[in-house]
Amino acid sequence: MSQQHSTYSLKELAERFGASVKGNAEIQIEGIESLKQARSGQLSFVTGPRLRDEAIACAASALIVPPSLDDLDRHLLIHPSPYLLFARIAQLFDEPLRLNDGIHGSAHVSEEAEIGPGVRIGPMAHLGPGSRIGPGSSICGTAYIGADVQIGCDCVIHPGAVILDRCLIGDRVIIHSGTVIGSDGFGYTPDEEGRHIKIPQSGIVQIDDDVEIGSNTSVDRATFDRTWIQRGTKIDNLVQVAHNVVIGEDSILAGQVGISGSSRLGCHVILAGQVGLADHVEIGDGTRIGAKSGVAHSIKGGQDVMGIPAVPKKQFFKTITHLQRLSQYRDEIKDLQSRVQELEHKLNRDEP
Amino acid sequence: MSQQHSTYSLKELAERFGASVKGNAEIQIEGIESLKQARSGQLSFVTGPRLRDEAIACAASALIVPPSLDDLDRHLLIHPSPYLLFARIAQLFDEPLRLNDGIHGSAHVSEEAEIGPGVRIGPMAHLGPGSRIGPGSSICGTAYIGADVQIGCDCVIHPGAVILDRCLIGDRVIIHSGTVIGSDGFGYTPDEEGRHIKIPQSGIVQIDDDVEIGSNTSVDRATFDRTWIQRGTKIDNLVQVAHNVVIGEDSILAGQVGISGSSRLGCHVILAGQVGLADHVEIGDGTRIGAKSGVAHSIKGGQDVMGIPAVPKKQFFKTITHLQRLSQYRDEIKDLQSRVQELEHKLNRDEP
Amino acid sequence: MSQQHSTYSLKELAERFGASVKGNAEIQIEGIESLKQARSGQLSFVTGPRLRDEAIACAASALIVPPSLDDLDRHLLIHPSPYLLFARIAQLFDEPLRLNDGIHGSAHVSEEAEIGPGVRIGPMAHLGPGSRIGPGSSICGTAYIGADVQIGCDCVIHPGAVILDRCLIGDRVIIHSGTVIGSDGFGYTPDEEGRHIKIPQSGIVQIDDDVEIGSNTSVDRATFDRTWIQRGTKIDNLVQVAHNVVIGEDSILAGQVGISGSSRLGCHVILAGQVGLADHVEIGDGTRIGAKSGVAHSIKGGQDVMGIPAVPKKQFFKTITHLQRLSQYRDEIKDLQSRVQELEHKLNRDEP
Repeated sequence: MSQQHSTYSLKELAERFGASVKGNAEIQIEGIESLKQARSGQLSFVTGPRLRDEAIACAASALIVPPSLDDLDRHLLIHPSPYLLFARIAQLFDEPLRLNDGIHGSAHVSEEAEIGPGVRIGPMAHLGPGSRIGPGSSICGTAYIGADVQIGCDCVIHPGAVILDRCLIGDRVIIHSGTVIGSDGFGYTPDEEGRHIKIPQSGIVQIDDDVEIGSNTSVDRATFDRTWIQRGTKIDNLVQVAHNVVIGEDSILAGQVGISGSSRLGCHVILAGQVGLADHVEIGDGTRIGAKSGVAHSIKGGQDVMGIPAVPKKQFFKTITHLQRLSQYRDEIKDLQSRVQELEHKLNRDEP
Repeated sequence: MSQQHSTYSLKELAERFGASVKGNAEIQIEGIESLKQARSGQLSFVTGPRLRDEAIACAASALIVPPSLDDLDRHLLIHPSPYLLFARIAQLFDEPLRLNDGIHGSAHVSEEAEIGPGVRIGPMAHLGPGSRIGPGSSICGTAYIGADVQIGCDCVIHPGAVILDRCLIGDRVIIHSGTVIGSDGFGYTPDEEGRHIKIPQSGIVQIDDDVEIGSNTSVDRATFDRTWIQRGTKIDNLVQVAHNVVIGEDSILAGQVGISGSSRLGCHVILAGQVGLADHVEIGDGTRIGAKSGVAHSIKGGQDVMGIPAVPKKQFFKTITHLQRLSQYRDEIKDLQSRVQELEHKLNRDEP
Repeated sequence: MSQQHSTYSLKELAERFGASVKGNAEIQIEGIESLKQARSGQLSFVTGPRLRDEAIACAASALIVPPSLDDLDRHLLIHPSPYLLFARIAQLFDEPLRLNDGIHGSAHVSEEAEIGPGVRIGPMAHLGPGSRIGPGSSICGTAYIGADVQIGCDCVIHPGAVILDRCLIGDRVIIHSGTVIGSDGFGYTPDEEGRHIKIPQSGIVQIDDDVEIGSNTSVDRATFDRTWIQRGTKIDNLVQVAHNVVIGEDSILAGQVGISGSSRLGCHVILAGQVGLADHVEIGDGTRIGAKSGVAHSIKGGQDVMGIPAVPKKQFFKTITHLQRLSQYRDEIKDLQSRVQELEHKLNRDEP
């Protein structure tokens, strides 16, 4: 549970991540911070020339900059993608999870569970029979892992997260607090009297490597087969993923998005906040859907759509402009009506 | 904690659920699966002629079919509502909840709680003083039941669900993980300096028989009296039910719906995903509200509405069509303006 | 864990809260209830003349009324803000939290945690190392407090709430069940292959005095620095507050609101249900945003806006009226077209 951060020289960081140094390569770096908050001994970063003045004023010992700022009179780490380099160095300095080593005495761990080396299980966590936790994974205090769950290596399941029976979790998956993986899909069929009879949800949820899911999100298990979130996809807080949904690799779902049953998203799809998708729609690779949009029909790949119902973004903004001019259009129609009436009056008067 | 499924012959299933058999009535069925995944020994189901080819190719030992497909050369269970029959048989085969018998040693059960026969309480579940759990109900691990809560028989409270003090839960109610029943309603009144003074929420939540509530949903307790969800209503994930809301029988609330304080829904109301209702509105029996709609005023029964604000569905789609033609209308107005100007010019020229 | 309510005479209540009495000032009051439910021995309240008949019929022993109703032939507490007086008296009678005194034996409390006098910690609650809980605060059963968290005095952290490492909570803060404070902000940057690289979220969440946060809400920690909710702000259920958001004093966020990263709200801002704010927008003091609105740009103070995208409320309703008349406008355009064609025909005919 120690929290000692290492320090790294600029040279070490440059070699590790393929950056070049300008200035004193031996400077020791003990952390990374924003331009405003960085202090001596720390590194900071500048993403573009707009922040040149702040960069000059920053108290950091060194700065990550793009090549366009390599003239700054500071100790520099130069990299074409300064924000990406920042992310990687920040991961290096990131405060480790404060969790006990091994299995805490107050955790409930089934005798029929299998636990890899280096696994940490926090106070009052629950691990059901038949579950397997891969090497280096952390199950934080009060997290609940059901029966026959498989979790890969180096995962973090945060406090209060719930992963229910038979779900499959890949490697390096992060599940934040309050999120529920594997609740029942929402499926009923009416009986002869119109009462809703529950369709048992016997499928699972499969979450592949490098997925991260925010807090208080719900991912329902499939009716049959699986609800499937593929490698590298990132899901924000309070998102609803219904039964049998499939989400391709490297997609992004922002906060409060809702995806209805059996819909399928491709790879690199981006759904902005509060977007809703109807059931059984397909969204092609790379399509981006603007905030608060509602999607009732499938959309090909590479599109940029918005609105309720969603239309191409250009069209959406054109419609918005029209909406703001409806009073003007109405006035123009009224003006035309009186002018036409006037013309009719004149012509009729002139008629024989 | 055994998981042995029984097997049933086609004949037994037909008698139990009022279906008729064609083919070998003695075939033993050990499970039910989708057409794609079913294997020998299992039953599958076909809801209509569109799936005839898949039905023929299916590896299941027998099929549930509607009368219109009784010519299929397979062992058949024939029923006018094949999906309903599927649901009932699937419930028969549904994997039982993997939970310890009796009260787990690590659970916190108040000495002042009353627990019926056959109740199961999982690891680290909490049961407050004065609470009563009816026969056959299951309180899963890490679920929290407060003080003076009453829960009927054969309920399932999933891991991490929270039911707070004095709430009343009927029979056969299912509450999924992360859902909170009985959090305080959102009520304040400004003091002389504009600060928000909390209105204590002293009411309860009452949930009647056969209600199911998904994961991470919030149902607030009433200011006075009760927030009330009536028999057979089904609520999906991440739904907000505010204080003093009343929801009638057999209604459906899809994911991320929000209902503001004191609104009242009738029976058989259907709210699609992400619908929002203002406070103090009334929605009549059988009304259906389309996805993402916003409802600020009461709606009679039997309506089909959509939009923000919600209007009859036909009108909604008509307006959408108009919106897509606004450029055209604008062009037509411009065209009329130049033609009318031309006419005016001509007529004026002709004027004496 | 006793629940004895005191009784108060009308005179005592009047003196305590600056109201005046009409009738018998010695009447003993043992509780407060709505007009419908109040019984003898209890107090009720009337907010305006519209409820005069209900007030007369009410079984309560005394009524809180505004001066305009001081002619009622009942024992009265007269106050210019009867609802505010009700709130204050209701707080007096509010049922105390049913929680054990002291630290429950099944809670996990780090030896490195500091706990003030009168603190109550419920069964299976978690308190990490370095955390400090101020005098009189209650951490309910199954709540999770991480490492180095600071919580002020007289706070209530409800069952199943999660407050993660290093977050700062003021005095008299209430956090409801299932809410997560300090989950990671949603931040990634693409690497050379388009994969999302996590930006470590090293900041915190700071929540100031007298804030209340409903159930199943998520407040993410900052990338750097802090996500900050200032004094007296009230947040409802299922709300998303992203990283680095700042919310001023005495603001109101209704259910299912979502605020994207780094947006800043002023004081006395009101966001109605399901509102969504884009990232990096600023909302001025006192601005009110109607239900379901989407805000992509900053808004000055004192505005009343609505819609997607949000516009001044008057304009929103004007646009709605136009939308309902689009069929009429279209018909008028068609009518004009045929009349203009007729005119053109006539004029051309008349042309030499």
